Amino acid sequence: MSLIDRLDACARFTPANYRTFIVDGMPLGRVDHAFAETLSAYGEVFGVSSSDVVLSPDLATPDARTAAVADVLAQLRAEGMFPGWRGEHYPVSKSFYAAPALTVERATVPRFGTMGYGVHLNGYVKGDDGIRMWIGKRSMRKPTGPGKLDQVVAGGQPVGLSVWDNLMKECGEEAGMPDDLARCAVPVGTVSYLTERDEGLRHDVLFNYDIELPERFQPTPTDGEVDEFYLWPIGDVIARIRETDDFKFNAALVIIDFAVRHGVLEPDDPEYIEITEAIRVGRFSPGRVR
Amino acid sequence: MSLIDRLDACARFTPANYRTFIVDGMPLGRVDHAFAETLSAYGEVFGVSSSDVVLSPDLATPDARTAAVADVLAQLRAEGMFPGWRGEHYPVSKSFYAAPALTVERATVPRFGTMGYGVHLNGYVKGDDGIRMWIGKRSMRKPTGPGKLDQVVAGGQPVGLSVWDNLMKECGEEAGMPDDLARCAVPVGTVSYLTERDEGLRHDVLFNYDIELPERFQPTPTDGEVDEFYLWPIGDVIARIRETDDFKFNAALVIIDFAVRHGVLEPDDPEYIEITEAIRVGRFSPGRVR
Repeated sequence: MSLIDRLDACARFTPANYRTFIVDGMPLGRVDHAFAETLSAYGEVFGVSSSDVVLSPDLATPDARTAAVADVLAQLRAEGMFPGWRGEHYPVSKSFYAAPALTVERATVPRFGTMGYGVHLNGYVKGDDGIRMWIGKRSMRKPTGPGKLDQVVAGGQPVGLSVWDNLMKECGEEAGMPDDLARCAVPVGTVSYLTERDEGLRHDVLFNYDIELPERFQPTPTDGEVDEFYLWPIGDVIARIRETDDFKFNAALVIIDFAVRHGVLEPDDPEYIEITEAIRVGRFSPGRVR
Repeated sequence: MSLIDRLDACARFTPANYRTFIVDGMPLGRVDHAFAETLSAYGEVFGVSSSDVVLSPDLATPDARTAAVADVLAQLRAEGMFPGWRGEHYPVSKSFYAAPALTVERATVPRFGTMGYGVHLNGYVKGDDGIRMWIGKRSMRKPTGPGKLDQVVAGGQPVGLSVWDNLMKECGEEAGMPDDLARCAVPVGTVSYLTERDEGLRHDVLFNYDIELPERFQPTPTDGEVDEFYLWPIGDVIARIRETDDFKFNAALVIIDFAVRHGVLEPDDPEYIEITEAIRVGRFSPGRVR
């Protein structure tokens, strides 16, 4: 396998498999045909055609939309749909910075193909022998990517918390990182992807941060989301991404971006340009539904 | 102005203005209609239709293609075309890593719309007051971007020199940087763009490097390509990119990428995602002619 294959895993998308999810006149997501047919049974909430799933214009406010959709989803959940229900709402909006048109249960976001956001932190130690990176092994109880390898800290971006405050919270909860250390994290850009996963269509933007950690710091699982932490030479991390499917698909993307930014990959690698050009966009124009 | 405007300046491209430049069956560039008509006078070298400019299949080797095209270009240059002739050849190929199908005079690359490559080095000093960046003011005698602000070291990527060796050479020539210091440069990724400029269609991939410079180092113009160097706080550099047109279009792109990677821009900036998503691709899928 090559790193390009890992990037390709972030861009598995067939437009013909989806109908456009329209809210308040805006195309905000993509619904697969089967789920569209399911939603068509709720005609007072969803107007379903062969090309679109339109949230009823009678639902004129974010609160009204949120309540009506939550009601439908609760009924479907009672029928056994949506394993991994989170009890946590994600915003649905035109952009990350726009007011939500509605909010929906986090586990159903990939079913509507609306955008999700997350924070991922590359924790690394710099020494004479180069860069080592802290890697977390996700709990087997996680609804997505159970047992997969991940960043030292990573989490979804919920409603009502700034990206920075969310990162600080996750640093404490996931890795037992003290506040004064966590505050040394530096934003280093985004990666994004639009890709089909078991849970549905993932269309996410991840806010990435780097933190150089002191030798003496040892991350500690505190909230049960991570089972174990490992400190590995970055070359071994990259080799493992290349050769195995052990890393969560989006964690691999974040690490490849890290490797590019820190000179772990070099321009004389015949895949260098393809990798550097692909990492930010998952080979699709992001941030927008077409 | 916003940083987005600077990114938009790297993506001014109207497909209808161009015909595909085809070599050995491969679409390798784009020729505007006026230059296509000019080339149609040389029917033994160029087969020109309303959609394509095809290099004659009778020219079966890179050497034969290079010689035949050079002959045409020399005649056109004698008629006053191609100001800023460099006397330096650039490869034309399917990818950076592929053997060239031919080489052409550097100043004519934007007329054929074939891909160009360059190395750009962000030279910065880290202090208690944050990051300062070395900026070079280009000589008024440069054929492109005379008098514009630029990276401390930047140059085109010629045939027959590795990216790293080219960077080392430019570090010495442009900024008088000793070899043992220049070797601390770290590759940090690429940026690319496809955009219409006075000189023609620029479709480039830039290999970017960062170097943290010691306080005591003072770059010195040695080859006449740079008139002066300035050391400015990164916030002032970004403000100047935002508010003025003083920076060369591609130097601005390289600095915006630097600002993202070093946390100078932050996720709560409402333009953050648009900027981070746009910098690598100039809003076009790069590296490939369609």
